[in-house]
Amino acid sequence: MTVDVVALLRAELGDRVDVSPAALTAARADKSGHAAPGTPLAVVHAASVADVQAVMRIATATRTPVVPRGAGTGLAGGANTGGGEISLSVRAMDRVLEVRADDLLAVVEPGILNADLNALLEPHGVWWAPDPASRAISTVGGNIATGAGGLLCAKYGVVRDAVLGVDLVLADGRLLHLGHRSVKGVTGLDLTSLVIGSEGILGVVVGATLKLRRLVAGERVTLTALFDGVRSAAVASAAVTASGIQPAVMELMDATSLAAVHRLLSLAAPPEGAAQLTIQTDGPAAADEARAIAGVLRGAGGRVAVAADEVEGESLLAVRRALHPAMETLGTTLIEDVSVPRSALPAMFDAIAGIERRYGLVIPTVAHAGDGNLHPNFVFEGSEVPEVVWSAAEDLFRAALDLGGTLTGEHGIGVLKRRWLADELGDDQWRLQRDIARVFDPLGILNPGKVFEL
Amino acid sequence: MTVDVVALLRAELGDRVDVSPAALTAARADKSGHAAPGTPLAVVHAASVADVQAVMRIATATRTPVVPRGAGTGLAGGANTGGGEISLSVRAMDRVLEVRADDLLAVVEPGILNADLNALLEPHGVWWAPDPASRAISTVGGNIATGAGGLLCAKYGVVRDAVLGVDLVLADGRLLHLGHRSVKGVTGLDLTSLVIGSEGILGVVVGATLKLRRLVAGERVTLTALFDGVRSAAVASAAVTASGIQPAVMELMDATSLAAVHRLLSLAAPPEGAAQLTIQTDGPAAADEARAIAGVLRGAGGRVAVAADEVEGESLLAVRRALHPAMETLGTTLIEDVSVPRSALPAMFDAIAGIERRYGLVIPTVAHAGDGNLHPNFVFEGSEVPEVVWSAAEDLFRAALDLGGTLTGEHGIGVLKRRWLADELGDDQWRLQRDIARVFDPLGILNPGKVFEL
Ligand SMILES: Cc1cc2nc3c(=O)[nH]c(=O)nc-3n(C[C@H](O)[C@H](O)[C@H](O)COP(=O)(O)OP(=O)(O)OC[C@H]3O[C@@H](n4cnc5c(N)ncnc54)[C@H](O)[C@@H]3O)c2cc1C
Ligand SMILES: Cc1cc2nc3c(=O)[nH]c(=O)nc-3n(C[C@H](O)[C@H](O)[C@H](O)COP(=O)(O)OP(=O)(O)OC[C@H]3O[C@@H](n4cnc5c(N)ncnc54)[C@H](O)[C@@H]3O)c2cc1C
Repeated sequence: MTVDVVALLRAELGDRVDVSPAALTAARADKSGHAAPGTPLAVVHAASVADVQAVMRIATATRTPVVPRGAGTGLAGGANTGGGEISLSVRAMDRVLEVRADDLLAVVEPGILNADLNALLEPHGVWWAPDPASRAISTVGGNIATGAGGLLCAKYGVVRDAVLGVDLVLADGRLLHLGHRSVKGVTGLDLTSLVIGSEGILGVVVGATLKLRRLVAGERVTLTALFDGVRSAAVASAAVTASGIQPAVMELMDATSLAAVHRLLSLAAPPEGAAQLTIQTDGPAAADEARAIAGVLRGAGGRVAVAADEVEGESLLAVRRALHPAMETLGTTLIEDVSVPRSALPAMFDAIAGIERRYGLVIPTVAHAGDGNLHPNFVFEGSEVPEVVWSAAEDLFRAALDLGGTLTGEHGIGVLKRRWLADELGDDQWRLQRDIARVFDPLGILNPGKVFEL
Repeated sequence: MTVDVVALLRAELGDRVDVSPAALTAARADKSGHAAPGTPLAVVHAASVADVQAVMRIATATRTPVVPRGAGTGLAGGANTGGGEISLSVRAMDRVLEVRADDLLAVVEPGILNADLNALLEPHGVWWAPDPASRAISTVGGNIATGAGGLLCAKYGVVRDAVLGVDLVLADGRLLHLGHRSVKGVTGLDLTSLVIGSEGILGVVVGATLKLRRLVAGERVTLTALFDGVRSAAVASAAVTASGIQPAVMELMDATSLAAVHRLLSLAAPPEGAAQLTIQTDGPAAADEARAIAGVLRGAGGRVAVAADEVEGESLLAVRRALHPAMETLGTTLIEDVSVPRSALPAMFDAIAGIERRYGLVIPTVAHAGDGNLHPNFVFEGSEVPEVVWSAAEDLFRAALDLGGTLTGEHGIGVLKRRWLADELGDDQWRLQRDIARVFDPLGILNPGKVFEL
């Protein structure tokens, strides 16, 4: 059986079927630190929509599970491919097919990296706003499949706000064109939105019509503010939001994460226990807005430093960007991703402090404070997440849900959070969602075991 | 059977079950000019979520079709209720349950009118951006169920951009809470988005968590520009879009619609054949933006007039707002709703001119030019849409699809457009969408015959 499937793939796709040990091993994992058990059957490097369709037809005929894959930077184990499964990579489908600055749209293949796309768009005076911290290494298709967010999204939106249409290959190989090129449209059910964030369980995204923005004119102003502790930083960030000024970026780092990054970058150690907000304004009113925000931050007890220019501003933001590498120096990291209403940020930090106490853990936490999305990091030794960490994570999820929030603001459910999915959705909605997925994929061959525990 | 259902409803809902001839007749129609055949069983005026659940349980037990209804201002026949069906009105569920200016959210019942909600929000310094021209007479639940757009939506978004979560009663009476209160969240499939624009076929919207915006500071500047004909006005509007300045409102009226409104309002007749753009800018840079736009319009051959103040600005916009009444003076109106990429507006107007010639019809057309959404009006005598009008409309739909657009930018499919739905979706997607609806409503009792022809 195993041999048959690979032979069938080979017959249609030739050397785009890769069974090298290195490729098979790489396909088992994403960046979550988790790897699927067993060895995949093959990695297929699709070069065209027809390739994707051929793989899905063979998969349907042979009932073989297929795991769609972009760049494999996911943090939920969604692209992890295990024994008996095909890893279907669309990374090589990376062309930009059309850019229309006048209509603010671009038509792209799914495998292009987010940053590469934006580099190509810039000369046209436009950009695609979703900016995950992984923009240099993750694909547009993966961004769509996870519903990615980023630093700028409180002001400029997430993926859900930036896609007009999607081309989708179904489990049986049929190709659907969802959405349209017009900004408005309410014809039938909004399947484009349904595919955004669907983590490869509804179909393979083989093309997308993206909604662009014009490049923002004017300079960027960056400032930081140090606070006694994470709670006062969180209160200050809520005060900025409540002031009505919309920063482009507003990132919060707690004391542990700030100290870890300072160590990694060989910067002077921050004051003991100090937490930091890093804020950037942009557009024609950037300077005025930064001044007003500085006032709010000082009023909330912050020690404010404003970057002299964009270069210094970038170095301030670089501290935030170095968080992932800094965590990696401490051990294996499980990056959590709860999201709450912005006013609940202080309460969520209180909950995290309580969890740290109850479990005797240190949980370095950063937050996209502008939109209420927190990334508590659980650091441990070895490659298996210890049960105590999962227990603490469970408390974290419950606290977020109690505050009106969600398990995952941007990383998705994948394998790592599927056991809590029904806690958030409720059993009725869980079943309804799974039944909807079955309409797209009646045999359950698309990314089985992800999102919905089978 | 008929008697049984009404008796069952009465037993649970008492005098909220209305079988007065006036109510039954009113429930047959919306504002599309179309009415359902036969007489509804009853109109239920639900006062609570429990009422809605009771109706759906009885409907499921007796296999009785239910048509959810807000204010009945729809233009696609979606709320029209026919023989053997229950009209389930949520208009009386009109409370605002919570306003959080700091979190930019409000929790509301579905029956509140859009304008009433915004009047309540204003003292909090916030607003809900979707602004259909019917905002004074349509409900928030109906806006969600249709995915409504409006004049401001090129700058401030449509309903799809302005809803965080929805409470939905399923066909069998179960209540689901979709979405969350946080701005970000990718837990499971995005059913909130799927419900937006679903026209009552997936469930009854009984509550919503809305995403608000802060009131826009600064003044509004309104200007008009007259052009020789509709094509040059369309070219000018595309030039404004391409200039990168984002007006809050950009409305286009062709010669016939402009002349009709001037007659209705007893204004001096516009120059023969003249079409008009009405543009409004807002925010701190409103005056500068208006000046720059005036330059673009003059460069495109427009005769520009800038309102002296906001009062005069409102009277300029009143001309656009009088379009519906003006059409009504001409006869019965079928208001079409195609949408195309903005750069395709001139080509779409060419197509309309071709259709006028081919069918010997006059098709007064207005457009939300800022987002490429056109409302061609077919005016006729009597209450049945003549076949020639449907033939012409069919040509219109095909032209929009050929330009990368869609059948309906904001009004929905309802009954009036269901025969063309598969033309846009393709047969595979059409079937997939219908099967998804069946997951929500296996018995097909929710708004049957709407959207998907049965
Ligand atoms: C350092 C670092 C920083 C990060 N920062 C952020 C951040 O700020 N915001 C954020 O949202 N995420 C962040 N991430 C997570 C990750 O980069 C995103 O989830 C990203 O969108 C994944 O893209 P990818 O191409 O790597 O997808 P993969 O990891 O390959 O796949 C992710 C999921 O999408 C599915 N998938 C991928 N491509 C397709 C396709 N074409 N069709 C159907 N399904 C597909 C996979 O099956 C899987 O379920 C970060 C990750 C790292 C390592
Ligand atoms: C003068 C005029 C101007 C208009 N301008 C615009 C415009 O600019 N933009 C625009 O988008 N529309 C416009 N419309 C159309 C109409 O007002 C919108 O479609 C509006 O959103 C309908 O709201 P309603 O409460 O009247 O819904 P209804 O007409 O009662 O219902 C519309 C559809 O939604 C369903 N529905 C209603 N409430 C619920 C609920 N709670 N749960 C589930 N399903 C429900 C119904 O079954 C039906 O299919 C206009 C209409 C008129 C008469």
